[in-house]
Amino acid sequence: MSLSDPTGLHRVVDRPVVLPQAAARLDTRRELWPDEVRVRVERLNLDAASFRQLERAHGGVGEAIRAEVLEIVKARGKMQNPETGSGGMLVGTVEEVGPDSPLGLAVGDRIATLVSLTLTPLVIEDGLEAWDGLSEQVPCDGYAVLFGRSIAAVIPEDLPAELSLAVMDVCGAPALTARIVKDREDASTVAVIGGAGKSGSLSLAAARDAGARHTIGVVPHEAEAALLRESGLADTVVIADARDPIALRDAVLSAGGPADLTVVCVDVPGCEGGAILATAPGGTVVFFSMATSFAAAALGAEGLAADVTMLVGNGYVPGHADYAMKLLRENDGVRGLFEGRLVGA
Amino acid sequence: MSLSDPTGLHRVVDRPVVLPQAAARLDTRRELWPDEVRVRVERLNLDAASFRQLERAHGGVGEAIRAEVLEIVKARGKMQNPETGSGGMLVGTVEEVGPDSPLGLAVGDRIATLVSLTLTPLVIEDGLEAWDGLSEQVPCDGYAVLFGRSIAAVIPEDLPAELSLAVMDVCGAPALTARIVKDREDASTVAVIGGAGKSGSLSLAAARDAGARHTIGVVPHEAEAALLRESGLADTVVIADARDPIALRDAVLSAGGPADLTVVCVDVPGCEGGAILATAPGGTVVFFSMATSFAAAALGAEGLAADVTMLVGNGYVPGHADYAMKLLRENDGVRGLFEGRLVGA
Repeated sequence: MSLSDPTGLHRVVDRPVVLPQAAARLDTRRELWPDEVRVRVERLNLDAASFRQLERAHGGVGEAIRAEVLEIVKARGKMQNPETGSGGMLVGTVEEVGPDSPLGLAVGDRIATLVSLTLTPLVIEDGLEAWDGLSEQVPCDGYAVLFGRSIAAVIPEDLPAELSLAVMDVCGAPALTARIVKDREDASTVAVIGGAGKSGSLSLAAARDAGARHTIGVVPHEAEAALLRESGLADTVVIADARDPIALRDAVLSAGGPADLTVVCVDVPGCEGGAILATAPGGTVVFFSMATSFAAAALGAEGLAADVTMLVGNGYVPGHADYAMKLLRENDGVRGLFEGRLVGA
Repeated sequence: MSLSDPTGLHRVVDRPVVLPQAAARLDTRRELWPDEVRVRVERLNLDAASFRQLERAHGGVGEAIRAEVLEIVKARGKMQNPETGSGGMLVGTVEEVGPDSPLGLAVGDRIATLVSLTLTPLVIEDGLEAWDGLSEQVPCDGYAVLFGRSIAAVIPEDLPAELSLAVMDVCGAPALTARIVKDREDASTVAVIGGAGKSGSLSLAAARDAGARHTIGVVPHEAEAALLRESGLADTVVIADARDPIALRDAVLSAGGPADLTVVCVDVPGCEGGAILATAPGGTVVFFSMATSFAAAALGAEGLAADVTMLVGNGYVPGHADYAMKLLRENDGVRGLFEGRLVGA
């Protein structure tokens, strides 16, 4: 048996070896390397961009969506949508802990993984029979493996698991938003595109928590606007189609912009230009949407002669899960939006 | 006639209107809006990622490559490779200046455009008959249109035009590299992946110019290593395949890394993981390659639990062309590498 690597290289089947996230196939054997942890899976939470792509590809037919997820996981040894490249996360209970695991987990801990399903060895054992294929929340029996450098968070006992999971799934966004607002003294006006969504509402809460003086929430239609207004998370709420760059720019301007920091949290393609135009010269755009096109962002800014700093939204910031849970506990507005979405789903 | 917009919206044929860079088709009429400039084109410089894709798609057959470029420009009214989304830039002579143009250009000025061909209305009038289809430098007779917010630089008379053009084509990279090194006091070790290339060599020169204490140039093979060593632009030169994350990490570590700032300048896909692994916790990665995958960068960092700031390389930084020309004039190493590449092309 080869030595294990904390990044999971030892589970990569591809030759030459690539990182687990880039791999076509992972080794899903049950037996653990000494620094690994095996988890009994109870639920998968598919990435929103991935689930939407599956929905579109199969015309919303649940059985076909389920069949494709099963096929992907069987073929790749992990859940990674070949079209979007994205995965999601999972909830489960620790089943076995290798003697050298540095994760601090114990058998029986109920956890959520904070690394993507795109690099997590996964075996589905129940054919996803309890899932109708119509929601990104997927009841599932099977097992998954965590590496030495994987990140997992124990689910708080005082909150519903679905709620904790939904928060942890997007916890990178509020942590990075807060860091940027704190690091940049001039980041006083923050616009969040998709402000009523999961990562969007947390990012609005984080911006205010970190000291932003004016927060703007952009939403696509009146129903979302009403939700966001009721939550009280944004100083100003405006409606705009984020794919229409001129409309987005004008909406943010009308709401007190341009923004010093624009946070893109909507999982639809084509929002790069509007986000750039909505941002003040010298400002920052951070893209959390997996639908972001690198070329559209880079060439869009160049083509507009826009001096903005553009960040790839890194899903990992130290302490991100704890910070997101704190925002949830302290903000009735965040909690209300999340609970409303879970009921609606 | 509709009013013009400095971003060129008035030339977008698509409905609903999108930004010129995202448009399927631009209006290429000769007549100018009052804030526009028309340029007589003498040469196109195709983006490296775009030219490589065309080369691969047509098995290196020059006539087929030429035919496809003509077809793209005819269909779209601009040169934008549908596969890579990228374009390039052009050189030409100012033919007419609208009365309200803010660009400060005069009829007869020989200029290079610093906005991408992906948003520049272009008409080719000579069928590219002087181009063999085998190089990204494309002799061309035709005309192009600049908008109010376009950026163009007058070509210095004391340097060969090809040299100035090659430098201006990548001038965003050194400007942004220098800015990051200056802004971050801890960015003392800078690794440039693809250090012997055009944007790479300028980025190495910029890092040193901005105060980096140790510069590392990563190149794919010994021939490039010899070129880079001779140039003197990097304190240490190492050879690694940037698509192999473990090899790249180990190469940068062996050369004095991890890097506080890693600059990715190679136009091949799959370099995200290695760049992340080569970067110190808390460090920065800036991606200048159009082959960068947003999802691979975002999920790669998350999957590695890597606390790195990742920037989309914005091709526009105020003063970027002047700064790059200064680096060229002051560094025999940069000039030697550029001149060698022009002869080789």
